[in-house]
Amino acid sequence: MQNISAQHFKLLATVINTIPFNKMIGLSLQSIKNNSIQMHFKMSPHLIGNYFQEILHGGVISTVLDMAGGTAVIINALQNFSEETIEELSPKLGKYSTINLNINFLRPGKGDFFIAEASVLQSGNKITFSTMNLFNSEEKMIASATGSYFIS
Amino acid sequence: MQNISAQHFKLLATVINTIPFNKMIGLSLQSIKNNSIQMHFKMSPHLIGNYFQEILHGGVISTVLDMAGGTAVIINALQNFSEETIEELSPKLGKYSTINLNINFLRPGKGDFFIAEASVLQSGNKITFSTMNLFNSEEKMIASATGSYFIS
Amino acid sequence: MQNISAQHFKLLATVINTIPFNKMIGLSLQSIKNNSIQMHFKMSPHLIGNYFQEILHGGVISTVLDMAGGTAVIINALQNFSEETIEELSPKLGKYSTINLNINFLRPGKGDFFIAEASVLQSGNKITFSTMNLFNSEEKMIASATGSYFIS
Amino acid sequence: MQNISAQHFKLLATVINTIPFNKMIGLSLQSIKNNSIQMHFKMSPHLIGNYFQEILHGGVISTVLDMAGGTAVIINALQNFSEETIEELSPKLGKYSTINLNINFLRPGKGDFFIAEASVLQSGNKITFSTMNLFNSEEKMIASATGSYFIS
Repeated sequence: MQNISAQHFKLLATVINTIPFNKMIGLSLQSIKNNSIQMHFKMSPHLIGNYFQEILHGGVISTVLDMAGGTAVIINALQNFSEETIEELSPKLGKYSTINLNINFLRPGKGDFFIAEASVLQSGNKITFSTMNLFNSEEKMIASATGSYFIS
Repeated sequence: MQNISAQHFKLLATVINTIPFNKMIGLSLQSIKNNSIQMHFKMSPHLIGNYFQEILHGGVISTVLDMAGGTAVIINALQNFSEETIEELSPKLGKYSTINLNINFLRPGKGDFFIAEASVLQSGNKITFSTMNLFNSEEKMIASATGSYFIS
Repeated sequence: MQNISAQHFKLLATVINTIPFNKMIGLSLQSIKNNSIQMHFKMSPHLIGNYFQEILHGGVISTVLDMAGGTAVIINALQNFSEETIEELSPKLGKYSTINLNINFLRPGKGDFFIAEASVLQSGNKITFSTMNLFNSEEKMIASATGSYFIS
Repeated sequence: MQNISAQHFKLLATVINTIPFNKMIGLSLQSIKNNSIQMHFKMSPHLIGNYFQEILHGGVISTVLDMAGGTAVIINALQNFSEETIEELSPKLGKYSTINLNINFLRPGKGDFFIAEASVLQSGNKITFSTMNLFNSEEKMIASATGSYFIS
C-alpha cells in the first residue's frame, strides 16, 4: 500500500468521522505507513462491555477492525483512481461490502487508547483480502482479524 | 436450551440493556424459544454505515451477533445454576470471554427492525460454541455467524 | 435446494469420487434431501491424526467440510442449468473457488463413520454462502463450518 | 518462538511424518526461524482438486495450515518443558486440540512446491492463537489462516 494523495486521505478521514457509529467510538484515521493504515480511539466508559473486568465491548473491537479492514481495501483501490476528482470518487466508495469477518480475541481489551492497523493481503478483480490487528496503549495485541471484501 | 427462571431472564435482560454500547443500538433480549434466544433492535439513522446504500454499519451487525452468541452461552450456563440467587450469579456472568467470532455478511442490512437469533451448538467444560443469525423485518437472513466462548 | 436431475447427480458424484484426495478419504456424495446434501466416509486408521486419542485428523474434517460446502454450491447452481448437457456443464464446474472457510471443532472426531451435511445460506450473482456440519455414527455433531464461494 | 532443542525438533518432525494423512501430502517440518516454523510439501497430481485449473485441493491447503498452526503451538509449549525427556513429553503432545480454524484462499494453489509458515500470536494458560500463511514456489501467498487451540 503506497501513499494516496493528501486530498484523498482527507476525504476518507472525513467520511470515516462522519459515520455516526464511528463517531460514538471516537474512531479516526491517523496515518498510512509501513504498507498499513492506522486508526485510533480512546478508552471511554461507554465503550466498556464488561463492568466486572472493565474491558472493551467485543462489538467495539469488531466494529473497529471491520472499519480498519474496509478502509485499507478502499485506500488500496484509490491508488488505481489517483487521477479522479473527489466528486467522481465518492460514489465508488459506497460499492464495497464485507463478505466475511473473522476475529480472534487475544487479550482483554484494557488500555488508555487503542490503535488498529490494517493492510491488504491480496487484491483481485472482485475480491480483496485484508488483515487487521488491534493494539492497546501498552503495545499489546488485543485482537487479530481478517476480512474479505467484494467490489461490485 | 430450556427456559431459565423468569427472575434470571429479567436479570440478564437488564444487564444487556445497561451496557451503554448496547443501549446505543437499542438492543434488547426478547425471548427464549425453540432452543434459541431472540434479540431485537430497530433501524435508526445513527446505525447506518453506508449512506449511498442506506444499510446497517457492519459493526452494528457484528456487535449484535457477538452479544446474541454470548447471551446464549450465558443462558445455557445459567441452567446449571438454577438454585442460585442473583447475588451469587452476578460475578459469574463476568467470566465469559469470546475466543473467536466469524461473520458472513449475506445481504445488505436493510429493514425496519432486526431480530438476532442465537443457540448453543456444543457446550464443554471450558469452551462453548454458538451459532447466530440476523434477520430483517422481511424475515430475510442478513448475516450468519459462529462464536466460541471461554468460561474461566 | 431442490433435487437436480438424476443424470446431473450421477455426474457430480463421479467427479467427487475421481478426485484423488477425496478417494483417499473415501468420501462419497450420498443424497440430496431436506434442502441439504449429504456426504459419507468411514473411519479408517490412515485418517487418524492423534494416536493418543484415536481421533480424526483435523485436515480430514476440514477437507470434507470444504468439499461438502462446495458441492452444495455447485448443486445450487446446477438448478439454473437444468437444460444443459453434461458436456456443456463440465467446464462450469471448474469455475467455483472458495473465498473463506471457517471451522469450529466441537467434539473429538470419534466414530465408525461420518456424515457431512451442507446447504446454501444465500446465493448471489457472484458469491454463494454455505453452512456445513459433520456428524459421527452416533449422530453427535463433530464440527460445524461456513464457507463463502466465488463464481467466476 | 525461540529454538527448541535439536532432540525435541527431531521428535516433532518424526511425529508429523508418521501421521499417515501428512505422509500422503508429503508434509515435513523444515525449520524454525524468525519466530516461525516452516513446513514443506511438493506439488503432486494426487493433491490436485480441480483438473480444469490444475490447482491444489482446498483440503490440502486446510490440512497443511492446521498442521502448521498446531505445530507452532506445540513448539511454543515445548519451550516450557525444555528439561523433560521425550518419554515425559510424548503424552503431552496429544493434549492439544483445534478450537477454530479460519482460512482465506487468496490465490489459486499453483506451484512446484509450497511452504507453510506459522507463528504464535498469543499464548495463554489454556488457549493459544496462531497465524499461518502458505506460499508457493514463486513466493506468492496462496492462503492465510488463523487458528485457536485448547490445551487440556
